[in-house]
Amino acid sequence: MNNFRFYSPTEFVFGKDEEKHVGELLKHYEAKKVLLHYGGGSIKRSGLYDKVLKALKKANIDVVELGGVKPNPVDTLVYEGIELCKKENVDFILAVGGGSAIDSAKAIAAGVHYDGDFWDFFDRKATIETALPLGVILTIPAAGSEGSAATVITKESEGLKRGSGAQVLRPKFSIINPELTYTLPMWHTAAGIVDMMSHIFERYLSKTKDVILTDRLCESTLISIMEASRTLLNDPNDYEARATICWAGTIAHNGILGVGREEEWTTHGLEHELSALYDMTHGAGLAVMFPAYMKYTLDEDLERYYRLAIEVFGVPSNQFQKREVAIEGIERLITFFKSIGMPTTLKDAGAKKEDIPTLINTLEKNIGSTFGQFKKLTLQDAQKIYELAWD
Amino acid sequence: MNNFRFYSPTEFVFGKDEEKHVGELLKHYEAKKVLLHYGGGSIKRSGLYDKVLKALKKANIDVVELGGVKPNPVDTLVYEGIELCKKENVDFILAVGGGSAIDSAKAIAAGVHYDGDFWDFFDRKATIETALPLGVILTIPAAGSEGSAATVITKESEGLKRGSGAQVLRPKFSIINPELTYTLPMWHTAAGIVDMMSHIFERYLSKTKDVILTDRLCESTLISIMEASRTLLNDPNDYEARATICWAGTIAHNGILGVGREEEWTTHGLEHELSALYDMTHGAGLAVMFPAYMKYTLDEDLERYYRLAIEVFGVPSNQFQKREVAIEGIERLITFFKSIGMPTTLKDAGAKKEDIPTLINTLEKNIGSTFGQFKKLTLQDAQKIYELAWD
Repeated sequence: MNNFRFYSPTEFVFGKDEEKHVGELLKHYEAKKVLLHYGGGSIKRSGLYDKVLKALKKANIDVVELGGVKPNPVDTLVYEGIELCKKENVDFILAVGGGSAIDSAKAIAAGVHYDGDFWDFFDRKATIETALPLGVILTIPAAGSEGSAATVITKESEGLKRGSGAQVLRPKFSIINPELTYTLPMWHTAAGIVDMMSHIFERYLSKTKDVILTDRLCESTLISIMEASRTLLNDPNDYEARATICWAGTIAHNGILGVGREEEWTTHGLEHELSALYDMTHGAGLAVMFPAYMKYTLDEDLERYYRLAIEVFGVPSNQFQKREVAIEGIERLITFFKSIGMPTTLKDAGAKKEDIPTLINTLEKNIGSTFGQFKKLTLQDAQKIYELAWD
Repeated sequence: MNNFRFYSPTEFVFGKDEEKHVGELLKHYEAKKVLLHYGGGSIKRSGLYDKVLKALKKANIDVVELGGVKPNPVDTLVYEGIELCKKENVDFILAVGGGSAIDSAKAIAAGVHYDGDFWDFFDRKATIETALPLGVILTIPAAGSEGSAATVITKESEGLKRGSGAQVLRPKFSIINPELTYTLPMWHTAAGIVDMMSHIFERYLSKTKDVILTDRLCESTLISIMEASRTLLNDPNDYEARATICWAGTIAHNGILGVGREEEWTTHGLEHELSALYDMTHGAGLAVMFPAYMKYTLDEDLERYYRLAIEVFGVPSNQFQKREVAIEGIERLITFFKSIGMPTTLKDAGAKKEDIPTLINTLEKNIGSTFGQFKKLTLQDAQKIYELAWD
């Protein structure tokens, strides 16, 4: 087990109707003038937008609004948010939405306190030392950004999708009401499910051995996510299943499932290129890339894939055919992704085979020519993984 | 799943040699004058005391000392600590030790900011609103106080052992170096193991249904604790096993394993009377009381005990003999407690049968005449559980 620091100071406020407490939470965290940051019309259609405004008014909190966050949130809106916060002397950001709204809010929060170009944080030219405090009302369980220190932003003009992060970006509070996710279409629910499972795989497929407690917590969470997913296919309004997905999505990315280990994140890197090039839904891209990555790295640590197959996918153990058992585990993961309506090949996901060189090109710009801890990879390896994912 | 708030803002600093960072951590949390609070000579014998003093000196932090914390920490030392902190204008408390030192530090931290008698917090006459900040260097994995909001103090003159708590009592940081626990005698290691397992049982035996993710996280942690315990019986210096025990003890009580459910805590109430009357080691008392409580409440929720037996104790499932399976689970728990050297009857633990009426008397004073969520209990039930635990 490696030494680690685990720090998750966010106050998670979870359950039915909890969004009604947003005013008192903001007051508790000393917000006076809030940037309300959100995406499109869904929170207006659902009535959440009105509810939040009413709660803020009741708490005598001034509000400045910035809607329009898109999936794969872009730098241009972040610049707009930073200017707005500075001009209006905003002292707190409230993100209402999924990972895109939260990530955009985090980038704004960091940018407000920085004199240079906020993209410096994503270019690794500067580190985030301070930020505006932020809070969250979550509507899409997927990215785990409600409990994480990270943010991912796309620089539109160059098609670069990059991450940054700092402990100061962890939300002060995150309100998570599973009922708010009832209206989420199955496609987005499923993409979110893939995303949170991927956050666990990125931690589970580690070169660090001997962290059996973390292993088991990962496995328990993966099993619970898949079980709840099957329930939701039959009944999208099953509260317990929605609640399991919501909470699993949060703990999948607040750090608790990665303690003691080197984390991986190669597959996220490979997927970010797809999202950037095609504006592909992140979860859909991961559903394609993770099985391909797993097949490609199978022999790097057969024992790990063997354990995953048995403990998570229920493949019967067979110590004389470990490789077959491990492969069967990956096949079951693919079957599961298909069952929830996700693409499992690049072809199905709408990519073009002739774009692979372009993907490799921007990958090199974004994460360099070698990457990976679990298995050291080169751009040639990346090309093979994209090809493996093709069909 | 019930609505819940999960808030665990403590920065956990985990691993080999991490205590060397205590100075910079204290500075980060703006400590200038620290009360160094600890127990007896063990931290002096191990050299930890010298290391800590040196680190504080290097960081230019002033130190006031108060040693002498005993297991089942007492009010008299808390009063002394409060006076000392006030007199010396201490602005931060550093507890070095196990749950006793940390609980004592928490009570002092709350008392310094309160004009009345700190025992008011334990008498339910006042609630803790503010406290001195505190940090921890953990040497005994057991109580989970390094990550919890709770403290338990014994009022010596009246033999009352009571708990209190507040979010402001959560440590700012907790340094957990598994190597510091190598020198812990097996008896104390085992008592700690029982304590952390009990913290999970108090959350697992809940009347709230349908929190399957929390169930699985509890089960994973219990399995990992027992597995690591068996390793330690053979090799007390196995780093991975010590690390598993240390981290399991922390997450067993920081709240993550109780989310979404009503927690129980009846058995802790029953045990506190034993600790108070006999100065019994808390974990030893729990090793006696938990199996008795489980047997007594078996039919309240047979399904729960059936699941526990299968998932944690590996009893083969048999849906036609659920009660037998459930009982076998409890028997395996008793066998496990015995295997790590814990008493499993009140007789073995050094209690006197004629004291049971006294235990019931103080129990009534401490927690009233009815208690329990999982199964509603009266003082008559409590008497029967003590009798069941006798031999």
